[in-house]
Amino acid sequence: MKTRERILATAEQLFALHGVAAVSNRRISEAAGQANNSVIAYHFGSRADLMRAIARPHNADIEQRRFALLAASGEPDTLPGWAGVLVRPITDHFAALGPQSWYARFAAQASTDPALRAVLTEEALATPSTQLTLREIRLRTPALPPVVQRQRTDMTRLLVVHICAEQERARHDGTADATWEETAEALIDALTGLWMASMR
Amino acid sequence: MKTRERILATAEQLFALHGVAAVSNRRISEAAGQANNSVIAYHFGSRADLMRAIARPHNADIEQRRFALLAASGEPDTLPGWAGVLVRPITDHFAALGPQSWYARFAAQASTDPALRAVLTEEALATPSTQLTLREIRLRTPALPPVVQRQRTDMTRLLVVHICAEQERARHDGTADATWEETAEALIDALTGLWMASMR
Repeated sequence: MKTRERILATAEQLFALHGVAAVSNRRISEAAGQANNSVIAYHFGSRADLMRAIARPHNADIEQRRFALLAASGEPDTLPGWAGVLVRPITDHFAALGPQSWYARFAAQASTDPALRAVLTEEALATPSTQLTLREIRLRTPALPPVVQRQRTDMTRLLVVHICAEQERARHDGTADATWEETAEALIDALTGLWMASMR
Repeated sequence: MKTRERILATAEQLFALHGVAAVSNRRISEAAGQANNSVIAYHFGSRADLMRAIARPHNADIEQRRFALLAASGEPDTLPGWAGVLVRPITDHFAALGPQSWYARFAAQASTDPALRAVLTEEALATPSTQLTLREIRLRTPALPPVVQRQRTDMTRLLVVHICAEQERARHDGTADATWEETAEALIDALTGLWMASMR
């Protein structure tokens, strides 16, 4: 593994386990077997750039899986169908990574970091396939005012990020009582209900 | 303010802003104006005990509000009614704290901390009124298998914790586009939909 890749893998794991703010560049470089602490700044620039570099290959794989799903099955007609287009590429990505994956916990940690949360949220939500999918979901809930659609988009993001993080942790610890496929089905059902809920 | 209270308020704010693992006892004691770093261990024992001491008055107030609501309005007959019994005492608690509250963000940070997440989750979910309310919600969704009820309980907890944290942050930053009352309504609608969702 090259230095750059070793730093990325080490940082992802340490951030996932301890939280982003709790892990210094010194700790990452030491754990990655680098004598020189400036190696992270040299390869990645700022902390936000390091976070983006960790997220990029994951988002790219999820993006590729979502377009492959749309190409194979065609665009669905229903809200549950689009919830599946949103969720399955993500859970399939984690299933493919196996029990040693860290990225779901990394994303959950990053999403509660006050300074860095915007970086990753924007990266993940800005991908063309995510934008397309959220637009199709909103098109199927035309009775909801824009502010409610925005609230439910926030809820969708929170549920997917944190349920995947809990599932990843449980699989890593050997305490999971669900497969990634079952997690996908639970999320799709719940998100369908959440989006179809009427307002009082 | 007494030393103990000053430490609690300082720790809550620092944990909310930076994450639990990122804040040392030394930093808390310095920010609380204490020359002696051992003052935290002296007053609170372990880190988990400090977290519990921060959470306890909040959980007690939420508990009191929930029983007051049940006493005033009686037990509701419907799922949305029980979703309201779950959510409103929490959002009312934050509304009463005002824009300088930190506890919602503290709870969100604590819930992603691998070492301490269990402490606060158990504290918050174990209160009699929360147990009662979740039991009533499950009674109104008898078609769901226990594993799905457990998944939806997890989703409920994640949504309430993280939506409240985002709302608290937005109110603190002056960027909130919703009141706490509107946040409560959005959560109650969404949770009702989430629990009523059928399974595929």
